[in-house]
Amino acid sequence: MRATLIYGAGDVRVGEVPDPVIKQPTDALVRVVRACVCGSDLWQYGSKPATPHGDRIGHEFLGVIEDLGSEVSGLSRGDLVLAPFVWSDGTCDFCREGLHTSCRHGGSWARDGVDGGQGEAVRVPQAAGTLVKLPVGADPALLASLLTLSDVFCTGHHCAVTAGVDARTTVTVIGDGAVGLSAVLAAKRLGAERIILMGRHKDRTDLGLEFGATDVVAERGAEGVEKVKELTGGDGTHAVLECVGLEQALTTAFGVVRAGGTISRVGAPQYSKVSFGFPDFLRNITLTGGVAPARAYIDELLPDVLDGRVQPGRVFDRTVGLDDVPDGYRAMADRTALKVLIEP
Amino acid sequence: MRATLIYGAGDVRVGEVPDPVIKQPTDALVRVVRACVCGSDLWQYGSKPATPHGDRIGHEFLGVIEDLGSEVSGLSRGDLVLAPFVWSDGTCDFCREGLHTSCRHGGSWARDGVDGGQGEAVRVPQAAGTLVKLPVGADPALLASLLTLSDVFCTGHHCAVTAGVDARTTVTVIGDGAVGLSAVLAAKRLGAERIILMGRHKDRTDLGLEFGATDVVAERGAEGVEKVKELTGGDGTHAVLECVGLEQALTTAFGVVRAGGTISRVGAPQYSKVSFGFPDFLRNITLTGGVAPARAYIDELLPDVLDGRVQPGRVFDRTVGLDDVPDGYRAMADRTALKVLIEP
Repeated sequence: MRATLIYGAGDVRVGEVPDPVIKQPTDALVRVVRACVCGSDLWQYGSKPATPHGDRIGHEFLGVIEDLGSEVSGLSRGDLVLAPFVWSDGTCDFCREGLHTSCRHGGSWARDGVDGGQGEAVRVPQAAGTLVKLPVGADPALLASLLTLSDVFCTGHHCAVTAGVDARTTVTVIGDGAVGLSAVLAAKRLGAERIILMGRHKDRTDLGLEFGATDVVAERGAEGVEKVKELTGGDGTHAVLECVGLEQALTTAFGVVRAGGTISRVGAPQYSKVSFGFPDFLRNITLTGGVAPARAYIDELLPDVLDGRVQPGRVFDRTVGLDDVPDGYRAMADRTALKVLIEP
Repeated sequence: MRATLIYGAGDVRVGEVPDPVIKQPTDALVRVVRACVCGSDLWQYGSKPATPHGDRIGHEFLGVIEDLGSEVSGLSRGDLVLAPFVWSDGTCDFCREGLHTSCRHGGSWARDGVDGGQGEAVRVPQAAGTLVKLPVGADPALLASLLTLSDVFCTGHHCAVTAGVDARTTVTVIGDGAVGLSAVLAAKRLGAERIILMGRHKDRTDLGLEFGATDVVAERGAEGVEKVKELTGGDGTHAVLECVGLEQALTTAFGVVRAGGTISRVGAPQYSKVSFGFPDFLRNITLTGGVAPARAYIDELLPDVLDGRVQPGRVFDRTVGLDDVPDGYRAMADRTALKVLIEP
């Protein structure tokens, strides 16, 4: 079959790979119907050392079950299923606590002999725990929004939930990428009435306003902090959703968080140290977040997506076939596309 | 009157200072009945640059009201009152949210013309918001435990509360000082069944065991982390209460926290950067805590102290008069005393 391979920074190709087959009785084989490119794929696209063989990539997909191992219960051939961006058994103590990303028998896509999502088909380990059956005959127009439950919308939701967003909290979202916009949508869905979006790409922040942002701050750094403070009587906001992952974004987060407030970060940190000493200790600031256990949130978010109450799929502004995935990466890296949908 | 003055590192003296008087209609004048030395006073005692005039010090005291400004309601002359370790108006939005340490009209003792607690009397700003009336005729034997509500027991409680301690959480407490032991007691009070205390002073960890610790780990650094992991099936604990403030203690905290877990720190950080990058992001670790808003917790904790259900005053192992406060500092700095009570 054909699948996306990354050979190094800036070098993504679509090539032939072995057809996936059931290897474990807990596996399923899924024919991919929709996949997409993640902002976190771009870290690899920006810096991966060259490799002669090419590595699989992609961790967001939904598709149709073609085959099932003998021990997979609750799923049938022909089911339309969604895969969260890590696979997990669904039964260990971490999964039961809702932290599927730390599953004792789980792992990542496109690693250790497991397929990536940006291809024609995927062998899914721990299928019963991992896959979520979608209502058969889901409106094709909904597929894009359903796909966001694989990662990006759940990641925005995780950010808002861990930051404690509710109707009483004021919110700043840092970053107008697909995760930031998802965080706006999630914060709005959780009841936040004041949502300040920090971003400087007008087409993106315009979508953010439609998603529920009440203010947009285009300035960055100290100037951006000043602006958010002006908007909040000098205090900053209770919750800060850091959706970038760069040190400057985190510094901004500390600048705009209100005393007693919480910063949640879901952008993969591109730094190892955090300036978080005595002054923020005196202000009782909390730093939380992390990689989103998407599987834990799908049951809660799915009904709102199915009935159109939220439309997170609007973050996709370009669709490509499998052959054009390299163009999709280029477009996202160049910021001419916000997020790229793949129809293999 | 006489009060404690700090002239620099290692140089604490008791000297004459002006008698406090009511300056604002919101002030009260309190004759100190009990005060104490805090672990955080020792940071100054260890490193304060020399000053010719001497600075006031001390932020934990209880006493009897001698005089009241015209606008103070709810208190009367002769009341026995407890002062939390910051003063606050009790009415601003931060106070109403329980974050009295960020009060819009509050401040610290022993600073900006406000008296320190280690003296014969104190002018208390914002008295109606700050002071908590204690039941008249409180048993003198209870005074030590009541005094811990000024700071140390509330600080341990804040640590446990912000770390989310309850009956389902396993807990590690780092540090066997008075705050660490208070954190053990607080965690036990909140229902924790497994409390691992990291400390190497046997007389202190013995008291920790009486306060509710189930295990003691005397090893430090990587060896201590290994030991806690052994005790927890390799996972670490859900909650880690960091009660020291040194970088090494925080490194240990990251080492012993379970995936999805929370580190709360209440030891004043003696560092400005925290190693908190991608690996702990993948594990969804939260770092919280801060300076404890003691005032917010007193109403909840007071009944348990009054009826003896908890006896946090057991952390005091030496009592001095005002003249011997310098000896008390020396004893705490030398670790021959755990925490020193002052009877002025």
